[in-house]
Amino acid sequence: MSTLTAPPTQQQIKRFEQIRSQTESICAPLEPEDTVVQPMVDVSPPKWHMAHSTWFFEQFVLQPYLKGYQVFHPSYAFLFNSYYNTVGNRVQRAERSTLTRPPLRDVYAYRRHVNEHIGELLTKANEETLAELMPILELGLQHEQQHQELLVTDIKYILSTNPLLPAYYTQNPSSSPALEAATFLEVPGGVYTIGHTGDGFCFDNELGVHEVLLNDFSVMNRLVTNGEYLAFMQAGGYDDFRFWLDEGLALVRSNNLKAPLYWLEQDGEWMVFTMHGLEPLELNKPVTHISFYEAQAYASWAGKRLLTEFEWEAAAQVYPPATGNFQESGLFEPTAAQPGTGMQQLYGDNWEWTYSAYHPYPGFSTAPGALGEYNGKFMINQMVLRGGSCATPASHIRTTYRNFFHPDKRWQYTGIRLAE
Amino acid sequence: MSTLTAPPTQQQIKRFEQIRSQTESICAPLEPEDTVVQPMVDVSPPKWHMAHSTWFFEQFVLQPYLKGYQVFHPSYAFLFNSYYNTVGNRVQRAERSTLTRPPLRDVYAYRRHVNEHIGELLTKANEETLAELMPILELGLQHEQQHQELLVTDIKYILSTNPLLPAYYTQNPSSSPALEAATFLEVPGGVYTIGHTGDGFCFDNELGVHEVLLNDFSVMNRLVTNGEYLAFMQAGGYDDFRFWLDEGLALVRSNNLKAPLYWLEQDGEWMVFTMHGLEPLELNKPVTHISFYEAQAYASWAGKRLLTEFEWEAAAQVYPPATGNFQESGLFEPTAAQPGTGMQQLYGDNWEWTYSAYHPYPGFSTAPGALGEYNGKFMINQMVLRGGSCATPASHIRTTYRNFFHPDKRWQYTGIRLAE
Amino acid sequence: MSTLTAPPTQQQIKRFEQIRSQTESICAPLEPEDTVVQPMVDVSPPKWHMAHSTWFFEQFVLQPYLKGYQVFHPSYAFLFNSYYNTVGNRVQRAERSTLTRPPLRDVYAYRRHVNEHIGELLTKANEETLAELMPILELGLQHEQQHQELLVTDIKYILSTNPLLPAYYTQNPSSSPALEAATFLEVPGGVYTIGHTGDGFCFDNELGVHEVLLNDFSVMNRLVTNGEYLAFMQAGGYDDFRFWLDEGLALVRSNNLKAPLYWLEQDGEWMVFTMHGLEPLELNKPVTHISFYEAQAYASWAGKRLLTEFEWEAAAQVYPPATGNFQESGLFEPTAAQPGTGMQQLYGDNWEWTYSAYHPYPGFSTAPGALGEYNGKFMINQMVLRGGSCATPASHIRTTYRNFFHPDKRWQYTGIRLAE
Amino acid sequence: MSTLTAPPTQQQIKRFEQIRSQTESICAPLEPEDTVVQPMVDVSPPKWHMAHSTWFFEQFVLQPYLKGYQVFHPSYAFLFNSYYNTVGNRVQRAERSTLTRPPLRDVYAYRRHVNEHIGELLTKANEETLAELMPILELGLQHEQQHQELLVTDIKYILSTNPLLPAYYTQNPSSSPALEAATFLEVPGGVYTIGHTGDGFCFDNELGVHEVLLNDFSVMNRLVTNGEYLAFMQAGGYDDFRFWLDEGLALVRSNNLKAPLYWLEQDGEWMVFTMHGLEPLELNKPVTHISFYEAQAYASWAGKRLLTEFEWEAAAQVYPPATGNFQESGLFEPTAAQPGTGMQQLYGDNWEWTYSAYHPYPGFSTAPGALGEYNGKFMINQMVLRGGSCATPASHIRTTYRNFFHPDKRWQYTGIRLAE
Repeated sequence: MSTLTAPPTQQQIKRFEQIRSQTESICAPLEPEDTVVQPMVDVSPPKWHMAHSTWFFEQFVLQPYLKGYQVFHPSYAFLFNSYYNTVGNRVQRAERSTLTRPPLRDVYAYRRHVNEHIGELLTKANEETLAELMPILELGLQHEQQHQELLVTDIKYILSTNPLLPAYYTQNPSSSPALEAATFLEVPGGVYTIGHTGDGFCFDNELGVHEVLLNDFSVMNRLVTNGEYLAFMQAGGYDDFRFWLDEGLALVRSNNLKAPLYWLEQDGEWMVFTMHGLEPLELNKPVTHISFYEAQAYASWAGKRLLTEFEWEAAAQVYPPATGNFQESGLFEPTAAQPGTGMQQLYGDNWEWTYSAYHPYPGFSTAPGALGEYNGKFMINQMVLRGGSCATPASHIRTTYRNFFHPDKRWQYTGIRLAE
Repeated sequence: MSTLTAPPTQQQIKRFEQIRSQTESICAPLEPEDTVVQPMVDVSPPKWHMAHSTWFFEQFVLQPYLKGYQVFHPSYAFLFNSYYNTVGNRVQRAERSTLTRPPLRDVYAYRRHVNEHIGELLTKANEETLAELMPILELGLQHEQQHQELLVTDIKYILSTNPLLPAYYTQNPSSSPALEAATFLEVPGGVYTIGHTGDGFCFDNELGVHEVLLNDFSVMNRLVTNGEYLAFMQAGGYDDFRFWLDEGLALVRSNNLKAPLYWLEQDGEWMVFTMHGLEPLELNKPVTHISFYEAQAYASWAGKRLLTEFEWEAAAQVYPPATGNFQESGLFEPTAAQPGTGMQQLYGDNWEWTYSAYHPYPGFSTAPGALGEYNGKFMINQMVLRGGSCATPASHIRTTYRNFFHPDKRWQYTGIRLAE
Repeated sequence: MSTLTAPPTQQQIKRFEQIRSQTESICAPLEPEDTVVQPMVDVSPPKWHMAHSTWFFEQFVLQPYLKGYQVFHPSYAFLFNSYYNTVGNRVQRAERSTLTRPPLRDVYAYRRHVNEHIGELLTKANEETLAELMPILELGLQHEQQHQELLVTDIKYILSTNPLLPAYYTQNPSSSPALEAATFLEVPGGVYTIGHTGDGFCFDNELGVHEVLLNDFSVMNRLVTNGEYLAFMQAGGYDDFRFWLDEGLALVRSNNLKAPLYWLEQDGEWMVFTMHGLEPLELNKPVTHISFYEAQAYASWAGKRLLTEFEWEAAAQVYPPATGNFQESGLFEPTAAQPGTGMQQLYGDNWEWTYSAYHPYPGFSTAPGALGEYNGKFMINQMVLRGGSCATPASHIRTTYRNFFHPDKRWQYTGIRLAE
Repeated sequence: MSTLTAPPTQQQIKRFEQIRSQTESICAPLEPEDTVVQPMVDVSPPKWHMAHSTWFFEQFVLQPYLKGYQVFHPSYAFLFNSYYNTVGNRVQRAERSTLTRPPLRDVYAYRRHVNEHIGELLTKANEETLAELMPILELGLQHEQQHQELLVTDIKYILSTNPLLPAYYTQNPSSSPALEAATFLEVPGGVYTIGHTGDGFCFDNELGVHEVLLNDFSVMNRLVTNGEYLAFMQAGGYDDFRFWLDEGLALVRSNNLKAPLYWLEQDGEWMVFTMHGLEPLELNKPVTHISFYEAQAYASWAGKRLLTEFEWEAAAQVYPPATGNFQESGLFEPTAAQPGTGMQQLYGDNWEWTYSAYHPYPGFSTAPGALGEYNGKFMINQMVLRGGSCATPASHIRTTYRNFFHPDKRWQYTGIRLAE
């Protein structure tokens, strides 16, 4: 994590409170029972997310820096540690659904308890202490934002497994405008600087700034749509081995996959489970909830290819960010691109699969201690995704941000942008 | 199920209400989150038990007999059917934990709704209708009592998987008196009549009354205790293949079993998780939560054997029932035998594993329709248990009652009585 | 095992040689490569069968009784012990296919070595020693005959998994005569003596002779045919849950079973893989290679039931054995019943599934030492089969013989006889 | 595959014969039974390798180019196709051990049949045909050499699973000389050209020649030794999460890994199973048969890192190849480095894990038709290895050669070279 000069305290407290309360807003529509289940191993119970992101502040900020701080409950460190081996034993990921206790109301009390003590700490800490703790507090907030995104996708998955298919919110967005054919925008070859260089926050995996040599390429001006993906399906794409990586094909066959996650065929019509319930497939919206394998097979069928993460970052340098559809819209679903030929949807809507493995940049090194476990140990078997999604907070994303998932995962908002 | 002459309505309504409210009493100490999880496939979420036993009355009593009855919710038949193929699709057993909705409060409303309409039906039905529906209502109540027992054992299992080891109730029973060595009581050989012959309720698996020829045998006057079982463990019983059935040994080895379920070794001392929390092992209490394999291995080590279900029933004819420790005690744990040499604990405390497969009696036939699926289709690979447990309602058990579980199951209150 | 008075040595040597060489005759048509594979865990490599049955004589006869005997190879006891925990570690069943060495020719040398030393021992042992070892030798021969049957069924399975569907022998038996409808023969109720009472050899599981009380019943005069079973299939039997035990139905669904093992549908015609290759289904031959679940479902669909093992044994007492189609015919496939209404196929052709669990008879006790592991430890979760099959040596079967398999197994020659 | 000018026919025939007969030499010490088993899914039966590499010539050379050619057996295309979806159905990889037929002698006959017809084709084909088929023939030979390497590693694995631990050859190489500490050799940063540029044969995955920008780095002058790896083990390396990628740690824990594959601890001494049997660990030999996870953890413990594949290729350009220990040595085990500080073991001995995912080079495209399935479809979840091993034919390796395996695989000859 890059170092930070301590920002003025009041503003920081306000930012802290705002991010923390956003987590609770996301959970507000849930029943207590929704917050405890884990229908697949990748999903964590919402109650766990809320407690774990709180534990982070207790463990790494309050305990070291607030003199005399008493932990809220002696067992919570064990219950709500996620993957930090350095700080002790932890509940195995696949057993998180056994945590029916503490009940939800205790987790809310835990959040209040920690929030109040963070407020106390920020008010009375001296400058030296603040200088030391503010980067950790910032990391805690970035971490909370990451869990906000996971909360959204995990809630969607939890609701989708219920035979009643309950909606998270009821209002149905207006339908999408007609859409033009995609265009391809040129990015000139040459040497590009990759990685985070500014003063603001970044994760350690964005460091090891280095230069890469790229050839000329061009990039699609928007995301691939449901309609375009449906054409691939209707052309027999899922059955034609020529378009698939071998392990992708095996996955498709052994799971009998025929469509993106959350697509349901009813009486010959494609329906989609969304955060506002089951709706007919809208052709102009970006296709989402697909695996890397599906993205790659689509690209192969279309006679194009996916970008590398370096190409994506170069394209983002050449075509600076416009506004995007982020968590703040409250839609929690990607929306259709606007008419026009300019670069669109580079940020927000969908994470974009790249054909780059999630590996360390040259010169990458992990931080000492528990916070060093944040990213480095996951640098195998995962693919990089870029640009954020409709579940990402707008303040959380940036050009150099590297998200990563295994190529078979589909429960995140993941989509396709093509290159040629 | 045997036919029943219709009892006076008022008494029946009271009995209905009392059994139904007992289910709710069992669930009263739970948090909503406790009622939705399924930490292993044999366990069902408590919320599901409450809804399923209610659905039974709606499906088999209200819909056929209460004119104009509207189901509480059109999806509940799908959600809360357990295994009746005849009445339609059902949620797979292993997916019951996906049912975060309907929330617990809706399930309580469902129970009230059905209770009120049963009351209405019983009040206004004519004699002919009553004669027809009363046996089904009785089956529904027996069914509810079976689920009460499962509720108790499932709740215990759910709490045990939580790292906090929360207690279901807090008061700790007084400790057990000293205990004399067991004696063996004789049962003379001869022809015994097996199966249910009287007027009262019984399940179809108790019918097919028939005679069996038995040799002389004698039977232990109480259940095997924790102390006696501990001696088997300390003699290396779990490591000595000579005492084990081959599949039992494989299970013990692959799961690294060393003790009954819920026993925990802490600093060289055996502790036991109970419904009132973790407590030191009490040597005089009956050993419980063991598999058939463990019961059989213990018997083999002790130079004795288990009874067959026919021997058990004959012994119960020769030594008529005394009082027992049933669900009504509210203890939900077996208690120590009283001093003395008479027959004890034949009913209540622990289900007793017999060395009899759960097969049809001669002349067994299933009822037509959905209720015929009640018992017959489970007549393979399971062993018969007799006598009820501390989780069984006193009014639910009888001499001819045949319970059945797979020989590896341990989460019921199951124990050992020896024969020689 | 019952004790035996020592038979005259020459006759015994001849019997020993004849049974031992029959094992080699069964393996004669195999390639070395056929003898090493294990396409499913129930199947053992033929090479292993040949070595294991030889090891039995080395371990239990030569080592204790032939002074100065040197084992053929110091590792063979480890390699070829099957399930005798008493005599040391053993290769796990699922890893038997790793035994590419010793090669087949070494196993033949091992057999010769042991045969010669058995000959030497029988020739020079004194009467006292003979009296002691002859029962063990006899057990070894019975054991070898059991493995001959397994050899036949395992070879059939191995050949069936090869895409070339190679035939074990090439000549095709003549087709079957027309067949009359089955009749049901009466067996009067009363007390029957069950278990082995004579002087000849029997296994320990046939002892604990006891009396059982049976009701009147009647029994089908022949086995159920392919044609009759096909009618069940064509009536939708595999899809109709009403006929199935619940675990049988789950098996049928999860494995997508539609027919007996070895039936293949080709262009709308049913073909069957047999020991003489793929042939069209012959309707008059007995249906074979079915699980207990399929047998029970068929009986349920036909409005009949299976016999218990006690009923089977009583019927065999009332209707004494005729000749049957055994291993000696060399056909290794069941043949059609002859026209007529008398009792047929009670012995040979197919093992007949009974609705009796494989449990100890009253008074059953295991022999001390390793030979005590022969039968008793398998007395759980298996069903009894009676009467022998076309792979059973004629001299191996008897009225009281109890074979046993798990209810899902299909690779033995197993069929159906109905009762009513 | 790059195009080739047709070489003189006689020389080509000789080369064809020499490579083909080398395959048979590798299999000469095997028993027929050794050639049919598949003790884990990654391993193929040697008989299958011999037939599959032959099928390649029949399918892609003889059938299209030799007029009137009759296939040796109509089923072999089905049996011995490996992964070419384009040319039809194929036996699943995990079922290759069911192929007990055709027997080994038929496979040898198949090889002779195809060899003779290739000879005939090469002798009588005109120049135009030769120009077309020679690149395919070359690909077939390269393919055969790849299977030779797999044959060696699969044979080693098959022998290692046999409890007798049989040796492949019996002579024991002389022990290794003392070894100096490793040095690190500098490679200057700058732009390097990556990928195959010359006239000779290469695989399609080496094309898409492109330039990469590298920083300065230095590279270890030899492979990491057993002794150095043992120090990592003795320092608790397998138990210390700080050194491991998270998925590597999970693998180590769930499989209880403590050492490289083939290391066995006997009475406190480390022994190693080799192609000449079990031998005491030699400290100066290169550590081999380790996963990428183990290589990366070792590097992390040593305070160094692995090279990327681009760095490896740059280092090989700067330090040109010396001789190496290849398949031709017949040792089939890595040997110790020679004293001295020059670059050693860059080729042969061990494949070297790089921290590069096996992805397409820029501009990579697959060939049309079945041969296009050769490499591209595996470009996910695998890591690149460079330099060849003691099982690689010397004529098969080159600077730009990209081998690839999943990061958990250990049965190839795989080792470690560090960078800093």
